Amino acid sequence: MIVRLVQRIKQLNAPIVVGLDPMLDYVPEYIVARCIKDWGETLEAASEAVWEFNKGIVDAVHDLVPAVKPQIAMYEQFGVEGVKAYKKTVDYCKEKGLIVIGDVKRGDIGSTSQAYAVGHLGKAKVGSKLLTAFGEDFITVNPYLGSDGIKPFIEVAKEEKKGIFVLVKTSNPSSGEFQDRLVDGRPLYERVGEKVVEWGREHMGEDYSYVGAVVGATFPEEGKAMRKLMPKAYILVPGYGAQGGTAEDLKPYFNEDGLGAIVNSSRGIIAAYKGKAYERFGEAGFADAARQAVLDMREDIGRVLG
Amino acid sequence: MIVRLVQRIKQLNAPIVVGLDPMLDYVPEYIVARCIKDWGETLEAASEAVWEFNKGIVDAVHDLVPAVKPQIAMYEQFGVEGVKAYKKTVDYCKEKGLIVIGDVKRGDIGSTSQAYAVGHLGKAKVGSKLLTAFGEDFITVNPYLGSDGIKPFIEVAKEEKKGIFVLVKTSNPSSGEFQDRLVDGRPLYERVGEKVVEWGREHMGEDYSYVGAVVGATFPEEGKAMRKLMPKAYILVPGYGAQGGTAEDLKPYFNEDGLGAIVNSSRGIIAAYKGKAYERFGEAGFADAARQAVLDMREDIGRVLG
Repeated sequence: MIVRLVQRIKQLNAPIVVGLDPMLDYVPEYIVARCIKDWGETLEAASEAVWEFNKGIVDAVHDLVPAVKPQIAMYEQFGVEGVKAYKKTVDYCKEKGLIVIGDVKRGDIGSTSQAYAVGHLGKAKVGSKLLTAFGEDFITVNPYLGSDGIKPFIEVAKEEKKGIFVLVKTSNPSSGEFQDRLVDGRPLYERVGEKVVEWGREHMGEDYSYVGAVVGATFPEEGKAMRKLMPKAYILVPGYGAQGGTAEDLKPYFNEDGLGAIVNSSRGIIAAYKGKAYERFGEAGFADAARQAVLDMREDIGRVLG
Repeated sequence: MIVRLVQRIKQLNAPIVVGLDPMLDYVPEYIVARCIKDWGETLEAASEAVWEFNKGIVDAVHDLVPAVKPQIAMYEQFGVEGVKAYKKTVDYCKEKGLIVIGDVKRGDIGSTSQAYAVGHLGKAKVGSKLLTAFGEDFITVNPYLGSDGIKPFIEVAKEEKKGIFVLVKTSNPSSGEFQDRLVDGRPLYERVGEKVVEWGREHMGEDYSYVGAVVGATFPEEGKAMRKLMPKAYILVPGYGAQGGTAEDLKPYFNEDGLGAIVNSSRGIIAAYKGKAYERFGEAGFADAARQAVLDMREDIGRVLG
């Protein structure tokens, strides 16, 4: 799947992933109103609204980008119905040929990580059958529990030719609180990065590993250091756009082959119609606005990568 | 809810939480077979089997313990249907008067943690209504992203009088890989513990805070240090029994008032009937075996706490 991801990035000339993180207030009011009319003021209505919104976005951008990254929290907040909308979104994106990176940030002790791995990347055994539960292509994972919390994901990913992105240096303002603490003179996130390299050797694609890393666009200096430390790891870069990362900030995340990183934008694309730059599209044009925002982002990044 | 947790622990003389982490092979074969007969070899069948199993366990132990801790991974592995079984389990346990600690280990950047907090502890706003999605009383959270990833949980917990347990030092063998790394001469988990103290001040119950910590029973020395560092934090202690922690190991996790810690056992209780000590109960007696295992655990801990 990492091989396919690299292929698609090259074909589309777009190291871009669209974050499907639909807060309910990103969804046009007319969609929410219609869903409430049909389903009442219920979790079903919210979930249905999110799903319709996603479908519109996916239909508008699927030919432009290699991948999407649904953030499961935005679905989980609506309970079982929300999780259903997450699953529908994953399935629909895969039907449309998109690679799906489930932003689930799971991680636990070994036997529990194993269950998460089965649910998100692998297959659950029921009687004589092997059944796909969520079926994402990649997921994000949290390293705080160490190797035995990560390895079950890698084992399942190997069987399925799927991958993971390990949180290394996150994009949020207080990411430094623990991640930057110096361990023998070097920040913790570098120690995590070293482990990503080690884990990555166990599951290589062609030029890149199936074990990637998350490094926020909001910390380009750290991005540069991490690029050097983990040359074979694909870096998933959140924080571009709404969180403050600019195209110039992105350059150090890429290798000299122009590959090695994929940049996420969520709000900046899916809620583009709510911003000044795209307000001409109006609410009903939310999907067209998203498409235009992807085109602009592709150009913005292309300009810097040269 | 922390006040009620402390009350119930005192009333029942049982600082015990039953981990509802039903691997499918813990479920008696006759239950799995019946569910497969009714639902085919499907995720529904697996989820229904897990739910029936849980119901049996909960019916057998609900009068003995203050709390249960369903591990969401064990449900998520069966996809949407599994998540439904998780929700049914949460609801049923609450009906039975149990306090529910959702072992979800969520944590993300602020806006995303906010969505998780809404889904698990709070209420989602849909139109004019505030709706409960999962509705656990406490959840576990991962601190790797720092304060801005934790505070949304605390904010929602405050509104709802609910709480969180922050991963500090986990019970698994490689927990030390990052958690034990020395930062200015002291392990990272102590830095996290210091933050738990700071966060805990923002949301105090009576003697204890609504912000607790997870410290594994497999590391009693660390438990002792953490107890001293975080006197007002309830410590959720996994790792007793199947993971190797003994009753003697537990003593340092408690304060002199005999409170301050709650010990989890999962496999050792819910799969008791599969072990030598309880095999006399047989498969059909799985729930009675679980009850006996709780009684024995209560005695074991009571002996040490005196």
